[in-house]
Amino acid sequence: MTADEHGRLEPEDHHLLAVRPGQPEEATTEDAEDTAEIDPAGRRALLDAPYAAVRDRVRARISGPGFSYLSEPDRETYRERILEQCRELARDGFGALGYPESCGGQGDLGQFIAAFETLAFHDPSLVVKFGVQFGLFGGSILQLGTERHHQAILPRAGTLELPGCFAMSETGHGSNVADLRTSARFDPARGDFVLHTPDVLARKDWIGNAALHGRLAVVFAQLEAGGAHGVHAFLVPIRNDDGSPAPGVSIEDCGPKEGLNGVDNGRITFDQVRVPRENLLNRFADVSPEGVYSSPIASPSKRFFTMLGTLVAGRISVAAAALSAAKSGLAIALRYGERRRQFGPADQPETRLLDYPSHQRRLMPRLAACYAVDFAHKELVRRFLARTDADSRRVEVLAAGLKSWSSWHTVATLQACRESCGGQGYLTVNRLPGLKADTDIYTTFEGDNTVLMQLVAKGCLTEYRDQFEEMSLFGLLRHLTTRTTTALADLNPLLARNTDEDHLRDPEVQLDLLRHREEHLLSTAARRIKSRLDRGMDPFHAFRECLNHLLRLANAHVEREILAAFTAAVETADGEWREVLRPLRDLFALWRIEEDHGWFLETGHLEGVKTKAIRDLVDRLCAESRRHALPLVEAWGIPDSCLAAPIAFGPAAGL
Amino acid sequence: MTADEHGRLEPEDHHLLAVRPGQPEEATTEDAEDTAEIDPAGRRALLDAPYAAVRDRVRARISGPGFSYLSEPDRETYRERILEQCRELARDGFGALGYPESCGGQGDLGQFIAAFETLAFHDPSLVVKFGVQFGLFGGSILQLGTERHHQAILPRAGTLELPGCFAMSETGHGSNVADLRTSARFDPARGDFVLHTPDVLARKDWIGNAALHGRLAVVFAQLEAGGAHGVHAFLVPIRNDDGSPAPGVSIEDCGPKEGLNGVDNGRITFDQVRVPRENLLNRFADVSPEGVYSSPIASPSKRFFTMLGTLVAGRISVAAAALSAAKSGLAIALRYGERRRQFGPADQPETRLLDYPSHQRRLMPRLAACYAVDFAHKELVRRFLARTDADSRRVEVLAAGLKSWSSWHTVATLQACRESCGGQGYLTVNRLPGLKADTDIYTTFEGDNTVLMQLVAKGCLTEYRDQFEEMSLFGLLRHLTTRTTTALADLNPLLARNTDEDHLRDPEVQLDLLRHREEHLLSTAARRIKSRLDRGMDPFHAFRECLNHLLRLANAHVEREILAAFTAAVETADGEWREVLRPLRDLFALWRIEEDHGWFLETGHLEGVKTKAIRDLVDRLCAESRRHALPLVEAWGIPDSCLAAPIAFGPAAGL
Repeated sequence: MTADEHGRLEPEDHHLLAVRPGQPEEATTEDAEDTAEIDPAGRRALLDAPYAAVRDRVRARISGPGFSYLSEPDRETYRERILEQCRELARDGFGALGYPESCGGQGDLGQFIAAFETLAFHDPSLVVKFGVQFGLFGGSILQLGTERHHQAILPRAGTLELPGCFAMSETGHGSNVADLRTSARFDPARGDFVLHTPDVLARKDWIGNAALHGRLAVVFAQLEAGGAHGVHAFLVPIRNDDGSPAPGVSIEDCGPKEGLNGVDNGRITFDQVRVPRENLLNRFADVSPEGVYSSPIASPSKRFFTMLGTLVAGRISVAAAALSAAKSGLAIALRYGERRRQFGPADQPETRLLDYPSHQRRLMPRLAACYAVDFAHKELVRRFLARTDADSRRVEVLAAGLKSWSSWHTVATLQACRESCGGQGYLTVNRLPGLKADTDIYTTFEGDNTVLMQLVAKGCLTEYRDQFEEMSLFGLLRHLTTRTTTALADLNPLLARNTDEDHLRDPEVQLDLLRHREEHLLSTAARRIKSRLDRGMDPFHAFRECLNHLLRLANAHVEREILAAFTAAVETADGEWREVLRPLRDLFALWRIEEDHGWFLETGHLEGVKTKAIRDLVDRLCAESRRHALPLVEAWGIPDSCLAAPIAFGPAAGL
Repeated sequence: MTADEHGRLEPEDHHLLAVRPGQPEEATTEDAEDTAEIDPAGRRALLDAPYAAVRDRVRARISGPGFSYLSEPDRETYRERILEQCRELARDGFGALGYPESCGGQGDLGQFIAAFETLAFHDPSLVVKFGVQFGLFGGSILQLGTERHHQAILPRAGTLELPGCFAMSETGHGSNVADLRTSARFDPARGDFVLHTPDVLARKDWIGNAALHGRLAVVFAQLEAGGAHGVHAFLVPIRNDDGSPAPGVSIEDCGPKEGLNGVDNGRITFDQVRVPRENLLNRFADVSPEGVYSSPIASPSKRFFTMLGTLVAGRISVAAAALSAAKSGLAIALRYGERRRQFGPADQPETRLLDYPSHQRRLMPRLAACYAVDFAHKELVRRFLARTDADSRRVEVLAAGLKSWSSWHTVATLQACRESCGGQGYLTVNRLPGLKADTDIYTTFEGDNTVLMQLVAKGCLTEYRDQFEEMSLFGLLRHLTTRTTTALADLNPLLARNTDEDHLRDPEVQLDLLRHREEHLLSTAARRIKSRLDRGMDPFHAFRECLNHLLRLANAHVEREILAAFTAAVETADGEWREVLRPLRDLFALWRIEEDHGWFLETGHLEGVKTKAIRDLVDRLCAESRRHALPLVEAWGIPDSCLAAPIAFGPAAGL
């Protein structure tokens, strides 16, 4: 560095370089375009399996006529356009994929989720509108209704002949579904249900399809029939054929939103609206003409969670759609970073943004995380489709955790992408603004992430307790007080100082660290809660006081699950592909460990010499995997017309 | 926790509570509304000093007629509205505050910056448009021009009679200003300059006021007169009086953006556009009629940086405007969090969001950071106004650092605010979407944050070198290799384990930790770069290889500066106010230390027992300061009509 007599920096400093006769550059990947090792089309086929066919059909459809993006449409035009696109998807049969064949579908939720994930490469308004109609509306009828509802509704839901709503959230109650306040009182005199909104906080809010297009709604309300039976779902017509509100129903538009303005969210208020007794979706409970309530599930809580649990496919789909948006953002930012140059050594071409370690640090771990979440999602879908009563809770916990992690990852990724593209990233035409605005809500809809992560922590605690339920109270207490120490003592103290690259890149070492973190956080969380209960604190406050700890536990659990899925996928990949994925897996694992290295140091799992080695290795892995950035992005098969951003395509930076 | 026979969670678990006969609640602040200790109006007066009068005048103006927000305006209407509001502000004299009295102003940049900061409580499009016209356009003429330019332009700039542009960035060069490619060739035959855009990458891009309203532009171009003299600024008419482009000028609209759509950003291309020789802003360099270039500053680099350095007020203002947006977001989210309830103990009112430790963790450190940055900003303005040649570089470095830290803080804060308000936070009417979208660009305009933080690191390195410039080479080398060890050995090893609350809340302890971090990162950065230079690597690559380390150094420097300013402000506050600010200062300091506790552990500055104590104390400080959340927010004096969000005002949650 040099400075003139006033201590002011020389222009080379402004350039972040000094003008010096150039030494030959050290071997770097700059200008090398060395991306021959991986073949995106072949890789895409592998990533698409086992749903390659339906994904390709969706790609073809959303690349076709009628699916180009409108520039600055007004809300009305935008919503009609999205509706028309949904109709086209319905004509192709995509909407009904998960419905039974007898209702015009293919009875294949796996295909439906894959189609949904692929559709999310297009405008997020489209996939949300699609999800509202075919997933939330049709899906809840499929899961909570019985044959009479299926036959009457699903054929028309799947074709979009009958647009519908999923009316669960209320203005005053979003996360706390059990306490929502719309009532459905059975009137034995007339043999029907009376749906009612007691006050403005109990109106249904943010309901997709409500403001304009929905005719029928699945309404969640407190069933009252000879007593209170908790939340159940009812079919309630909300609009007449001419589009006017049904008698007793008032509907309001939610108005402009940060994003998803192609979706017509609305608020619905019921004023003593009567629907036939048969409109109760009665798979899990029914009311006789005489007003007698019955259910095959005796426990009200089990019934409630069984009902909600059947809707888990929505949460799984949302996690996947968020991921698709993150992929689109990375595809744009990485392509731009590969082309755009700024500053550089004297008398040489300026440096590509993606050759700056700071730029790699921003984007490459996020690319690795997209692959990680992708494999975790595939594993979750596999478990979901094969689930039994015994493991459905685990699937629900993982779905809650993956949805939260994936949507937060998406928000952070898109922010990094936007900033990485500077002013270009701020232009609507370059897609990043829309992707950001449209997916921001993913962190709080379909379950607020913070609440979902609490459910994950509860799930961990429940498993923990089950694990030891045969243990005597004395044994459990002893366990709670010794477990952490034992776990630490089990570690070979040399491990905490081992900085060999082979060791750091050993998948078992990586997974072990995440496992130890989870176990440690779990046992300390259990102990903290227990000590509060022992002091006589009520469980609500005991749990609340430990909330930040529990949220760390939930994060540790989800990251361990994601890494386990990624690791399994790498191990079963074919040779060439495995060699590309392995450094990505290492990057993801070590990046997560680095992110929390304070915790690992604090608890003695790692020593400083090792955390430093991990940081250096993350830097190197960013630089190494940067070579494959574009092929790895291309393997996702995002149609060019969906990606659309000019900066992702121009031969020169900034165009 | 309980679970039924299927291991499924009981409903109380879904509620995150268990239904148990309620124990009496432990003493908490819930429902206490115990906010009597601080008087917002009195506090506001103190926060507003020494510019209370101008701030109140701005508050009154932006609360007045013509300043309400339009709902979903189209871009054209929106831009005209913002222009009209700027005209009104100009009529009040706010635009010219920084200009000399002879040009219709008050010659007081301090007042101008305070007005700007207050204006940023309104729609961010307004403050940006205002900044473009009166700060960038008028300000650059003030700083780079001479009397003839001042008299000719500033009176009309300050009234907005003459709308103008600041045309620096190009499509191909944003951060790298020295290499921008618009040329300004002096033609000795005709005695004028010829401005030219050689190709599309050299067009001026993202220029505020360009698409519609600007008539005259300050254009930065490579001056060629008997050789290349680097970047200089020229006055170039870009539109005729009828609004059509001036001869040789073509103008394009940048189109829709993520935010700031009330500002008409455009692209300008020059095709051999001639301007008189006198249009060179000639404070620092001139060209004689014969074409002879001269400058009072001999060194081209010093000249370049002197010119850019005069524009530092823009960066200071931007940092303050970003902060104002973060304050608005927090005001909305904290008011909502105070009212909105969700889940709770059985048979009791549901719990206020702000009583959840997770909610406090999201928002309270950000509130503390707003106060911290606010005091740092005030200190920066003070130093800026009193700056001399000797310390102007330090002011520029701090301005770069504070702008980056503040704008990143704003992005993170607004994201936390949005998520904290759930679906309500996603509605445009609740302001958070607009605040987010409008301020996102603050991280990359007026200098990309990552580039600015590199300048900060350079500044640290330069000071470091200056500090030892008298030292022999041998002494310097010895210093580089021993300094870190010395610094560590200097520490009392007991300090790293001291968990006393008095110790942790001691401002000197907090500042010492941030000082040690900065020094450590600085000496290790210098050593790393030096070892590369010694190996023969050119400075550009040596710097680039250490980039991530240097960015950590820059952050450490800025955080230490912010904490120092906050600490000084607390120490000079009056008694009652000091008692409110002190925990906020502790929260800010310990939150930053906690955030980087891995580094402090790794380097032996802290031991695990102490980092755990810090984490617990941060939790407690969040809970304690939560009591003052609303009064602390009200002390900012954001006009209700500017805040506007219904969720900030309704008596009930969600309305």
